[in-house]
Amino acid sequence: MRFILFALISILTLPMSAQYTPTEEDAFMVRDLYTTALEDQYGYNWLRDLTENIGPRLSGSEGAAQAVYFVKQHMETLGADTVILQEVPEVPRWERGTKETVRFVDAPIWGNIELPALSLGNSIGTPEGGLKAQVVEVHDLDHLDSLGPLRLKGKIVFFNRPFDNSKISPSSAYGGAVDQRVYGPTQAAEYGAVAAVVRSMTGRLDDVPHTGVTVYREDTIPAIAISTRAADRLAQALANGPTTLHIEMDCQNLDPVTSYNVIADWEGTDPDAPYILLGAHLDSWDVGTGAHDDGAGCAHITDVVHLFQSLGYRHHHPLRLVFYMNEENGLQGAQIYAKESEKQGLTHSLAIESDSGGFLPIGFRCDGIPEVLTPGFQQLHAFSDVFSPYRIDFQTGGSGADISRLKSQGPLLVGFRTSPQRYFDLHHTDIDVFSQVHPREFELGSAAIAALVYLWDQSAGKK
Amino acid sequence: MRFILFALISILTLPMSAQYTPTEEDAFMVRDLYTTALEDQYGYNWLRDLTENIGPRLSGSEGAAQAVYFVKQHMETLGADTVILQEVPEVPRWERGTKETVRFVDAPIWGNIELPALSLGNSIGTPEGGLKAQVVEVHDLDHLDSLGPLRLKGKIVFFNRPFDNSKISPSSAYGGAVDQRVYGPTQAAEYGAVAAVVRSMTGRLDDVPHTGVTVYREDTIPAIAISTRAADRLAQALANGPTTLHIEMDCQNLDPVTSYNVIADWEGTDPDAPYILLGAHLDSWDVGTGAHDDGAGCAHITDVVHLFQSLGYRHHHPLRLVFYMNEENGLQGAQIYAKESEKQGLTHSLAIESDSGGFLPIGFRCDGIPEVLTPGFQQLHAFSDVFSPYRIDFQTGGSGADISRLKSQGPLLVGFRTSPQRYFDLHHTDIDVFSQVHPREFELGSAAIAALVYLWDQSAGKK
Repeated sequence: MRFILFALISILTLPMSAQYTPTEEDAFMVRDLYTTALEDQYGYNWLRDLTENIGPRLSGSEGAAQAVYFVKQHMETLGADTVILQEVPEVPRWERGTKETVRFVDAPIWGNIELPALSLGNSIGTPEGGLKAQVVEVHDLDHLDSLGPLRLKGKIVFFNRPFDNSKISPSSAYGGAVDQRVYGPTQAAEYGAVAAVVRSMTGRLDDVPHTGVTVYREDTIPAIAISTRAADRLAQALANGPTTLHIEMDCQNLDPVTSYNVIADWEGTDPDAPYILLGAHLDSWDVGTGAHDDGAGCAHITDVVHLFQSLGYRHHHPLRLVFYMNEENGLQGAQIYAKESEKQGLTHSLAIESDSGGFLPIGFRCDGIPEVLTPGFQQLHAFSDVFSPYRIDFQTGGSGADISRLKSQGPLLVGFRTSPQRYFDLHHTDIDVFSQVHPREFELGSAAIAALVYLWDQSAGKK
Repeated sequence: MRFILFALISILTLPMSAQYTPTEEDAFMVRDLYTTALEDQYGYNWLRDLTENIGPRLSGSEGAAQAVYFVKQHMETLGADTVILQEVPEVPRWERGTKETVRFVDAPIWGNIELPALSLGNSIGTPEGGLKAQVVEVHDLDHLDSLGPLRLKGKIVFFNRPFDNSKISPSSAYGGAVDQRVYGPTQAAEYGAVAAVVRSMTGRLDDVPHTGVTVYREDTIPAIAISTRAADRLAQALANGPTTLHIEMDCQNLDPVTSYNVIADWEGTDPDAPYILLGAHLDSWDVGTGAHDDGAGCAHITDVVHLFQSLGYRHHHPLRLVFYMNEENGLQGAQIYAKESEKQGLTHSLAIESDSGGFLPIGFRCDGIPEVLTPGFQQLHAFSDVFSPYRIDFQTGGSGADISRLKSQGPLLVGFRTSPQRYFDLHHTDIDVFSQVHPREFELGSAAIAALVYLWDQSAGKK
């Protein structure tokens, strides 16, 4: 209700002439985009190619380099007017190595069993042969501070605050737990801990560990995630008495390497129109194949071009696809793109990012500088009737990590949103693979994004 | 938009006093229902029990009989004031048997390979040793009629019209294809065909055959579904020349048996209030474990009782849970319930059915006699603000197969709706099992139904 009221107020207080009201013809075009997406499954098959032929694409890896050339080639095949590899000079290069074990040391009940684990991205390894220490369980960073060096020096710190599953959106639960993974290890290091073990970032109870980035300030210690079931087992052992773990990891940070954003442009019919940018990140974690995160986003934006071509739609604005490098562990690609865009004086009227996986679409969230956001959201809201059969709505507040770097340059920033219920089942895991992507749910996403681009293109072309 | 306009018109043209507007306290209660459902996962665990301890529950089977007693016992444990087994005297009893094979006979390329197949419910078997005949492919019943006895006598008819995947809702695609399975075989029999092979009712291309009911008018022939991939293979063989299949099935129809609806009542605080009925069907097909269809529905309505008890909610209306028998192949339970209700002069103000699986909830659809539907929908629409954070909306048009039999008796009929995108991936198959139910998506369904019952109970208690 707040949403509808806000929209009505906007409509009443802003000049009506700024808005384009979609026509019946627009509604038919949107329907055609949806039916074509569902029939062709072009993007879905493209995603199969990316994930099954290239595989994982961690920044700085061979897979990421292959993915850059794969996308470049595909964009040329799709008839882009220009395809540019934009240099991203210093992407971090982290390698998982071959050892990442966490095991009990002579624990009652558990003996010396190994716990399902994945080293955290950016982590250093342990000394060769591993390290062994008693475990201290903490639930949040304040708790860690309250223990201080006296209780933590020489210990393994176990961050075990679970997701709050009572939240309607698991994204909120993630937001409420992820500080343990990002800042917990470095903070534990400052108190003299020798390693950090982190409960996986999911509300699901299973044996699937989730990696993700950890950030070091000054001190570094090995940091590793264990599955939620393993975390429960470890907590149970600790409840019964002092518990020792042995941890061995041989991950390492190598010298940064040069990588690339892939930028593919299709000219529009209006030579003076600003860009419509569609973005997704090409890099992924090194486990699974980054099918939802963010192979799906890359496939969505590719699908938009296919859909326009299939339906013979000639867009007024130039259309720019940006496949960003290094979203997962640095955002270097986004920073470079924004810097270069500013230097070149490019103008983008709309930037849409798809980075919420290939799940059932629920809508778009938008952001921008105030003078852009207010009329921009008003315009999106005027599209609501066309989108209502597809259960797509519009909200304000946030967009996407990569495009958000463009905010000060004035585009309306729009983040594509999917149902978040299943996302953290597989986020940054071995099971984020193609078979987990539902073809229809994925294609409904391509269609929603294409429909929004189409309507925006119409609105700016005609109003 | 049409939806919103219609609602506004209703509000303007009907007496406003008929509506209850939810309070802030109501919104908090709804939030608590959601958070409790997501935290407790009571219904989800109950569903595990039903599906993994009882298993499939085809009408007339041992599994169905066990399920009746399982539910009766659970309702008693949940503290129902009364639990009744309502006799359903003549449910059909069909047994799949142990043979259901479809194989090519000396086909080029395919040789004698077997095609993944499931006999259709209600089908007769083949003669012992099977039958062998040439195949004629048809795409719809009109096409069948156009061929006539000359082309069909002695042949196996292959119904191969695929789902129209361009439909936004696979339920519409199902509606557009299922006549082949329900009426195709009997119609082919009338033209002298010796058997019918039906493309499985799904838009997915895979090796999973889908069973379901076929209905005989006069003539009967063996009828069997093959997977969609198998159907494509068979169509390809037919495109290359005459193709013969061998089919063997030993399914059979036995004498009808007595079974039961399970009815569990919880008294309300208002002794004069009419019933609020929550319904789902306890029977399932005999493959898989009927986890989505309709174990999820049975677990949803059980969960509602648990949620009210957990939050200490004392409802004004008596609450009645009906676990219907024989929805899949006869609807005998629904007919008996409606007949007995009429005979006993029961009044139901609201009947809600959950039979769209444990997928992500999207809303409710309502129906009723006109003098009930108009104010009823108006009242539901007045709940929209409370439901908007949960992305639940209200529409008119249809409810559910079991409760719809009560329409003339005057309740508002409400069908719970989930996202239909994944439903026909597993409908009536071996893979409709517990592991396919997502705990959070399922529990969001329980919460939505509980919230609707709560608000309706409040509205009728206070207005």
